[in-house]
Amino acid sequence: MYRTHTCGALNKSNIGQEITLSGWVANRRDHGGIIFIDLRDKYGITQTVFDPEDDKEAWEIANTFRSEFVVKLTGIVRARPEGQTNDKLPTWEIEVIIKKSEILSKSKTPPFEINDFSEANEEIRFKHRYLDIRRKKVLSTIEFRAAINQFTRNWFIENWFLEVQTPIFTASSPEWARDYLIPSRLHPGKFYALPQAPQQYKQLLMVGWVDKYFQIAPCFRDEDPRADRHSCEFYQIDAELSFVEQEDIFAILESYYTDAITALSPDKKIKTSKFPRLTYREAVDKYGSDKPDVRFDMHFEDFSSDFADSGFSVFKSAVDWGGVVKAMKLDQKIMTRSEIDEITVVAQTAGAKWLAYIIYEQEGPRSPILKFFSEAEIKALEEKLNPKVWDMIFFGAGDYKTVTKVLGTVRSTLRDKYDLVDKDEISFAFITDFPMYSMNDEWKLDFEHNPFSMPYGGAEGLANPNKLEIYWMQYDVACNWFEVTSGSIRNHDPELLVKAFEIIWKWEKEVKERFWAIYNALQYGAPPHGGFAIWIDRLIMILKNEESVREVFAFPKSGKAEDTMMNAPSYIDEVQLKELGIDLREEVKEELGLD
Amino acid sequence: MYRTHTCGALNKSNIGQEITLSGWVANRRDHGGIIFIDLRDKYGITQTVFDPEDDKEAWEIANTFRSEFVVKLTGIVRARPEGQTNDKLPTWEIEVIIKKSEILSKSKTPPFEINDFSEANEEIRFKHRYLDIRRKKVLSTIEFRAAINQFTRNWFIENWFLEVQTPIFTASSPEWARDYLIPSRLHPGKFYALPQAPQQYKQLLMVGWVDKYFQIAPCFRDEDPRADRHSCEFYQIDAELSFVEQEDIFAILESYYTDAITALSPDKKIKTSKFPRLTYREAVDKYGSDKPDVRFDMHFEDFSSDFADSGFSVFKSAVDWGGVVKAMKLDQKIMTRSEIDEITVVAQTAGAKWLAYIIYEQEGPRSPILKFFSEAEIKALEEKLNPKVWDMIFFGAGDYKTVTKVLGTVRSTLRDKYDLVDKDEISFAFITDFPMYSMNDEWKLDFEHNPFSMPYGGAEGLANPNKLEIYWMQYDVACNWFEVTSGSIRNHDPELLVKAFEIIWKWEKEVKERFWAIYNALQYGAPPHGGFAIWIDRLIMILKNEESVREVFAFPKSGKAEDTMMNAPSYIDEVQLKELGIDLREEVKEELGLD
Repeated sequence: MYRTHTCGALNKSNIGQEITLSGWVANRRDHGGIIFIDLRDKYGITQTVFDPEDDKEAWEIANTFRSEFVVKLTGIVRARPEGQTNDKLPTWEIEVIIKKSEILSKSKTPPFEINDFSEANEEIRFKHRYLDIRRKKVLSTIEFRAAINQFTRNWFIENWFLEVQTPIFTASSPEWARDYLIPSRLHPGKFYALPQAPQQYKQLLMVGWVDKYFQIAPCFRDEDPRADRHSCEFYQIDAELSFVEQEDIFAILESYYTDAITALSPDKKIKTSKFPRLTYREAVDKYGSDKPDVRFDMHFEDFSSDFADSGFSVFKSAVDWGGVVKAMKLDQKIMTRSEIDEITVVAQTAGAKWLAYIIYEQEGPRSPILKFFSEAEIKALEEKLNPKVWDMIFFGAGDYKTVTKVLGTVRSTLRDKYDLVDKDEISFAFITDFPMYSMNDEWKLDFEHNPFSMPYGGAEGLANPNKLEIYWMQYDVACNWFEVTSGSIRNHDPELLVKAFEIIWKWEKEVKERFWAIYNALQYGAPPHGGFAIWIDRLIMILKNEESVREVFAFPKSGKAEDTMMNAPSYIDEVQLKELGIDLREEVKEELGLD
Repeated sequence: MYRTHTCGALNKSNIGQEITLSGWVANRRDHGGIIFIDLRDKYGITQTVFDPEDDKEAWEIANTFRSEFVVKLTGIVRARPEGQTNDKLPTWEIEVIIKKSEILSKSKTPPFEINDFSEANEEIRFKHRYLDIRRKKVLSTIEFRAAINQFTRNWFIENWFLEVQTPIFTASSPEWARDYLIPSRLHPGKFYALPQAPQQYKQLLMVGWVDKYFQIAPCFRDEDPRADRHSCEFYQIDAELSFVEQEDIFAILESYYTDAITALSPDKKIKTSKFPRLTYREAVDKYGSDKPDVRFDMHFEDFSSDFADSGFSVFKSAVDWGGVVKAMKLDQKIMTRSEIDEITVVAQTAGAKWLAYIIYEQEGPRSPILKFFSEAEIKALEEKLNPKVWDMIFFGAGDYKTVTKVLGTVRSTLRDKYDLVDKDEISFAFITDFPMYSMNDEWKLDFEHNPFSMPYGGAEGLANPNKLEIYWMQYDVACNWFEVTSGSIRNHDPELLVKAFEIIWKWEKEVKERFWAIYNALQYGAPPHGGFAIWIDRLIMILKNEESVREVFAFPKSGKAEDTMMNAPSYIDEVQLKELGIDLREEVKEELGLD
């Protein structure tokens, strides 16, 4: 037997007992020939004492202990001397006089210090993640993930959702992000794909009468790495329901988020459990983002018509060219000249030529552009923004996309500069009515998001000749300034689905072939249905105040999609390649010097 | 709103209420101009009534309903006429007079009947799994999986195990089964591998102080398909603990299995909650299998020394050549001539030349070989097997491997022929002390199972010059005649681990490179640790009386590792291949006519 107690279990009630502990040597102190060893495991720390007068052999073995050695110690629990106790930890009321000690394994000196103040960089920590996990901060995030997983499953099960594990080996559908592919040995030339999401499967479950489905699903997208999505694999709380409308889904999301955060993150404050709603257009109009931070107001007002005939030519010509004039107000902050220069650079980086502003000083408003404004223009400003002494107003003028982006960027920069939000506040908003199609970088019509969604107005809506004005029953949840949920009411009409795809792909046959399973399934009595995915990694990141999503994985991939600890990805044998019927391309072989 | 109630919710208490149901048309009957529609969903069936006198329009729409149409019906609940009620279902006390009906989606005629008596074959069912799931039997297995998943997670969490999700993208370790590989786009020429098991990760977690870990882990092995392991992906309940010995693990397994089956499968009887233990050698000696069915006794007794000088030359020469003579007794069954011929064919298929037997008839024992036996030999038989009138004894003689295999096969054939076991009985046994190495098909020394295990006797045990006589602290759990668990106490000494590998691989450097992460980790203070994996798919299969493990997946792969519903695996674009830096091999292209 290795232990009767963990290193966090002993207290005054054990005094006088003979016990055995196993754990890691944390600290060694010598006092007048007596050795004190702090023995540690994930549960806590216990002070052990080796007195050569008491037991020479145990003392001699202890004398060879080094940091992080794993040792097994047997001894008698006794009270610590007065003045050495510590209220914070129960184990600090006692210590153990050791009679028998044994080294279970030795340890080299770790490559970084194992404590929460360690400043080791990500690279060295991830390479030795098994040591990094010994740090409380890291373990606590892993424990938090376990807790939110369990809470989530209990919550959905209590609400009558059925957990279904959908396949991890599926078919490629490269029209969204890139698929990860797996060559098939049994079917040479063919490949499996890992699912980017269980989208089709969950819809098939609805056709199969499952009614309410959920799963914490591993998902896989071969995208270039970014800070808020883990490389290779990520997890989503995936759910789908039959016979629901958007309002039913919203009620579920509001109560899941409120319940989860109340239970798991009592340090966080949810601004309102009835989440505000913004259409996609409103969100961009007012905050310059489809995932706006609504923890603070500071929204944009539109002044395009007010400045249509302005004496200030910059504003007038913006409107003349079909653009907009927008402005927002910073409450009770006055920037210095150099601060204004700094925020102007931020605006310029986001695409602005220049950042116009007005400062409301005690003596009255001050601005280089104020002299060009008419009385009516100043009145419009005052009516919509109601500026007071010590406020500032910032303007954007030009094309809609640039103005909203610039003011959005200035807004979040000011938030960070002036701590305009409570960091422990969690603020959700529903973003609805996304456009179905958009122009892609090559100025071709493309899907904006999930093309399995139902267009507003059904077949009639889809017939709108201005495709950019077709909206669909898709919704996101923004949390602080992250997107944490995406979902939609699905298009359960097989012919309408084909039509929605045809607008982009042109070929009906191709649509039917690529989505063979769902297209077929919808013809056997498909219920109206809808659902959502919650990006649980990102949620953990927000609730645990982590700056990178990588920290919420027990064994993360690096920013370059590598596991430096396991050495993945890695080169493989020619034998393995041959068995799979594949080969490296000539250009890759050349690059690697294999030819 | 699509429904106020599900199709299983209404009962007498709803009489008089106006309600709305949505569901699938199951059955239509016409009686004197009135249409009766059974409306169905996963929750139940409700009878709805369309009377043209009452509502002509609703009746006209109902008149166009076909089987499996999805419809929305609004009407008033009323009691069913006397004599038409049914005690079994609460909804059969009522019916709904429909005032408003609407078709939500139509349905083609399904390719097979949607009921539990459907005799559609696996191929057609799996191709339309979304319809197959509508059958109660199929859904109930999916629901059972959800229940066992949730029970398992609760059980391990209550017992202080921490759930950790380990990576799905990892490094290749082709020394066990074949890996599934994923070409890396960002690192051309390199590949990720999917984990065959989280073996190394869970050991790294122990080094990281996690202490008690579990996970229901997806695992991936590119093996040829078989009936009791799902192609592509399967799931295991994976667990690992620090500072434990074999007995600690056994206690956990005994209570998990007992608790799970008691809670989830009340129709099953566990033979004993204290599982019998057999070493690997005992199991093969007594039952001819390392996963023996211990629901019934019928074990083998050894008679090698008894027949060493026998007058029966077949037995004598078997012993002379270093082989064995074994026998087992069939209780209270007498086989006819033709039945004996049949079982002899079974024995011959398993490798026997011939199957010797004795029948204990009322008149005394009868057998063609009896005349060769001495009195001492007959006495030995009687002492060890204690045959009674109406019993039979079967013999095996020859080399150990063939004899145990033949008698094992005869034993399980007799079990099935004579229903020697209760099909609802679940009988577990621990199989321990596996040999560390064995001779592979090429007569080279190879690992028998998991080489991360600790050899008995540590370094000294490993030094045994007869490598086939080295045993390790590995254990399996046999359930009925399946292996449902495998585990071991791990080798936590990095130098000893290298030694264990070196015996097979010869090169220390290769060992250290291939197991870089675990070899390194073990040098930073590794606790003694051990764990196990429970093959949950197989457990579900046993508890749900399924004959194929494929049935326990919501969306199964076929016996050829294909998903015929999604068309996976499939051919992919040249563009995708190019992006991944790989190409099909010339021979594959030729085969596919691509060159």
